[in-house]
Amino acid sequence: MSHIKGIGASSGIAIAKAYRMEAPDLSYDKKDIDSPDQEVQRFQDAIETSKGELEKIKDHALKTLGEEKAEIFSAHLLVLSDPELLQPIQDKIKSENVNAEAALDETANMFIDLFKNMDNEYMRERAADIQDVTKRVMAHLLNVTFPDPALIDEKVVIVAEDLTPSDTAQLNKEFVQGFTTDIGGRTSHSAIMARSLEIPAVVGTKEVTETINQNDMVIVDGIDGDVIVNPSDEQIEEYKQKQADFEKQKQEWAKLKDESTKTADGQHVELVANIGTPDDVDGVHGNGGEGVGLYRTEFLYMGKSQLPTEEEQYEAYKAVLESMGSDKPVVVRTLDIGGDKELEYLDLPEEMNPFLGYRAIRLCLERDDIFRTQLRALLRASVYGNLKIMFPMIATLGEFRQAKALLEEEKANLKSEGTEVSDSIEVGMMVEIPATAVIAKQFAKEVDFFSIGTNDLIQYTMAADRMNERVSYLYQPYNPAILNLINNVIEAAHAEGKWAGMCGEMAGDEIAIPILLGLGLDEFSMSATSILPARTQILSLSKEEMASYKDEILSKDTSEEVVEFVKEKTGQK
Amino acid sequence: MSHIKGIGASSGIAIAKAYRMEAPDLSYDKKDIDSPDQEVQRFQDAIETSKGELEKIKDHALKTLGEEKAEIFSAHLLVLSDPELLQPIQDKIKSENVNAEAALDETANMFIDLFKNMDNEYMRERAADIQDVTKRVMAHLLNVTFPDPALIDEKVVIVAEDLTPSDTAQLNKEFVQGFTTDIGGRTSHSAIMARSLEIPAVVGTKEVTETINQNDMVIVDGIDGDVIVNPSDEQIEEYKQKQADFEKQKQEWAKLKDESTKTADGQHVELVANIGTPDDVDGVHGNGGEGVGLYRTEFLYMGKSQLPTEEEQYEAYKAVLESMGSDKPVVVRTLDIGGDKELEYLDLPEEMNPFLGYRAIRLCLERDDIFRTQLRALLRASVYGNLKIMFPMIATLGEFRQAKALLEEEKANLKSEGTEVSDSIEVGMMVEIPATAVIAKQFAKEVDFFSIGTNDLIQYTMAADRMNERVSYLYQPYNPAILNLINNVIEAAHAEGKWAGMCGEMAGDEIAIPILLGLGLDEFSMSATSILPARTQILSLSKEEMASYKDEILSKDTSEEVVEFVKEKTGQK
Repeated sequence: MSHIKGIGASSGIAIAKAYRMEAPDLSYDKKDIDSPDQEVQRFQDAIETSKGELEKIKDHALKTLGEEKAEIFSAHLLVLSDPELLQPIQDKIKSENVNAEAALDETANMFIDLFKNMDNEYMRERAADIQDVTKRVMAHLLNVTFPDPALIDEKVVIVAEDLTPSDTAQLNKEFVQGFTTDIGGRTSHSAIMARSLEIPAVVGTKEVTETINQNDMVIVDGIDGDVIVNPSDEQIEEYKQKQADFEKQKQEWAKLKDESTKTADGQHVELVANIGTPDDVDGVHGNGGEGVGLYRTEFLYMGKSQLPTEEEQYEAYKAVLESMGSDKPVVVRTLDIGGDKELEYLDLPEEMNPFLGYRAIRLCLERDDIFRTQLRALLRASVYGNLKIMFPMIATLGEFRQAKALLEEEKANLKSEGTEVSDSIEVGMMVEIPATAVIAKQFAKEVDFFSIGTNDLIQYTMAADRMNERVSYLYQPYNPAILNLINNVIEAAHAEGKWAGMCGEMAGDEIAIPILLGLGLDEFSMSATSILPARTQILSLSKEEMASYKDEILSKDTSEEVVEFVKEKTGQK
Repeated sequence: MSHIKGIGASSGIAIAKAYRMEAPDLSYDKKDIDSPDQEVQRFQDAIETSKGELEKIKDHALKTLGEEKAEIFSAHLLVLSDPELLQPIQDKIKSENVNAEAALDETANMFIDLFKNMDNEYMRERAADIQDVTKRVMAHLLNVTFPDPALIDEKVVIVAEDLTPSDTAQLNKEFVQGFTTDIGGRTSHSAIMARSLEIPAVVGTKEVTETINQNDMVIVDGIDGDVIVNPSDEQIEEYKQKQADFEKQKQEWAKLKDESTKTADGQHVELVANIGTPDDVDGVHGNGGEGVGLYRTEFLYMGKSQLPTEEEQYEAYKAVLESMGSDKPVVVRTLDIGGDKELEYLDLPEEMNPFLGYRAIRLCLERDDIFRTQLRALLRASVYGNLKIMFPMIATLGEFRQAKALLEEEKANLKSEGTEVSDSIEVGMMVEIPATAVIAKQFAKEVDFFSIGTNDLIQYTMAADRMNERVSYLYQPYNPAILNLINNVIEAAHAEGKWAGMCGEMAGDEIAIPILLGLGLDEFSMSATSILPARTQILSLSKEEMASYKDEILSKDTSEEVVEFVKEKTGQK
């Protein structure tokens, strides 16, 4: 038996034998060939076989994971149809008389190196696509089996260094009980996918691929972040009990699906969901979300060759609003693109510090053609539900005023064109730049609401890139500085009779929830699957009691002291 | 006559004819050669001639600009002795039978492209070095005159697109009356050099090289950022008057050299200087600095192939402390390296957002071998003056405690070794990360002083990279959010009986000074040449009056409103 500690990325317990998802041996000999034409044909056959497989995986992903997640395979298929990649390989086979393996590998690596070093997220993703696809083609050239998790037909726990998007998209929930990886964190791609699929997962273990052999019995405890390899019978019993308890708890949670979220002392707060596409709305309903607290509109702009039209956007916004109905609010964040999230067709300049760069509202105010199109689509859709609009990355009141003026202009334009527009759209802003949290009082006079984006707020306030492992220890949601800023925002909103919500990871965190209740946060927006556990926790907490700890928490010296205090007061381990 | 608006980068008025510093025509024909050996010889001759020139320029820079600034030419000389660059060029001449011009250009460009795209500030600087040096060698190969400002022997105003370090280092103050450039800002290299040389300069005009012809009469007004081309006689008279007024004002300032800095209502504040090397101490004395508010120790680590020894550092710290004497404080900032300021020999990882990355105290706490060496050198030097130590980029109390503990450990070690150490060293921290300004109250209990680093504090608080032109409009020192944070720091310090200083650009700014006085800032640290104008301004201001505006300023909505208010109250234009 051995015990490995990792990061619980998706709750639940899985007990099954290990399925090691290993990279196949793709080594090859570079050699001269006799018939270049035959070799080109062999290469083209491998491409066609790979395309056929990818089409199947894409269909599978479409059915099980929705349109957005299937997009990645469209990108892979595009690579396999790209003459800029395929032609040089075929030329190389002919001009150098080398085998297809060598021509593929050398040409692909040239492109990968080129794109990887571009310091441009979009091109780096293309590099990853090429790498992913090249491996599949190479496996066919070498007649080596390429691991296709879609083919798994017995209950397993997947053990891998990391899972790529194409790996996770192929997971069949019926057989894959859970997974565990060497790398990754709570916000890495595989972790988000695991939560969305509701498969237990432990990531960032550093060592599962080294320790676990094929067919070893494995327990994955996604609740506490534990992995047990070859457990004793007692341990299996123990975890079966934990699994049963968790299932029971899930059933308890499910009972709260249609309940309103009230604290033990009868105070209502709003529990809403973060979504990315209209497809995600089902999950909001299924998990008892009281609305949408953050609709990220970036997906409409990504994986495309040009900007989405007003009509395309209108349809998407309308679909979400209609599905949520006239009561449940839908807070739409306008385009937050640029920086690390680049769009090829916008041709943005490379930046030394993209997180401190030209993005979101900064870009939208300059490229107001893009912005106005989105605003028009939103305004036209507004009559189908309870729409609220918020602007991302606001740093100054001047920017907020400018953005709001453009919205008012487009509203007037639409009205003068005879188009119906709702007159009760609330207009708010993300609080994710420290400056706005510091002088929230000034902003509160002009906004209808605040939504605190903690992911960015924390990284700017601590001056630490959360994606940079060397400084990620400074990404501290419970740091008293962060809590003081959040408190400042909530107090400023309430003083003006406005509401304050939160749409970062923190809003669904069980240490943060009691603190935020005590600070008076009105709306908590989180992944849909976090809503029911959060509602359960809130039902048991007294808002008044939490509020009585406020001053003490805000004067703590360090993050560690805050956590210790909250655990003690709420009886959490 | 035409009038060009730019950024006043160095005060004063220059009136002289234009000297266009243009890049020479370095185009060449690539051609086959008959005798590769002769061609290699011709190339080596050009290298030797270039080296000789650079040696001369370096000596000149050493005398007029000090050791640190002459370092750049050592870097250039290194390039000309680097076999990794020279050998491939000579090989190319021989193997391809091409002329030296083509071999030089193609090989150098290969290296430049490689280094430029490395997204690593150090390598980009090396790329710039190679570019700079290659041009000189190419000019010799082509027998074209290379502009050497050192050769100017009549009074001129230099007009250029930009000035490189080697350009500015060659400027002879006797003849160069001023300069103006198309690009650059107040913190660009050429602007800092101009202030240090006390040559009037207007930068960032966008168009001087387009508008001004060789020998045009030009007025450069570095006070208001104006450039007048071919002025009328009346204008010349007008500006001669302005020049005389400025000279008179400088004499007035000089009278205040040995005065203490007291407001009109008799309150003392401390005016101290930012320095980079022991050489800079003369400027502090010459400009009446009451001490050193920021001694940046990075220069000791830069332009070297390995870490400086404890002994080297000890000598540098001792020199500054001795020169300032036992009264005048010297605030030393421990190593702030990493991020954009990279050291080749540390081999730091490339980062996506270096400003939010692994640097300064974050690096020093992990690489405590480096940190302890610096602390020991500082402690040993402490007996030679009034030393205060501060840590850069502190984000959490935990970090401050850790850094201070290491200092205490080394102090104990030195004492047990029998080395004398001062017992009155104050230990403080930079406030440049928003988190520390927000909970300054918690920090104030444990530090001896704060020094607010506004350059970084502003860019993190506004989430805008100040070097990124697309978002530099968000670099707003007078933004009410920044002022509220500064106020919070000062109030927290005073509540615990500690002092608060500032060592960013803002401390010497004439709009900021009245505000900072009103907020109660105790110490203003700035470029030495800003001290006397700042003292003059402070003598005329009432601290009590400025303090009475505090609440109103802190509740303003925008930066623009703050500026307008301050100008109105202080009668500034």
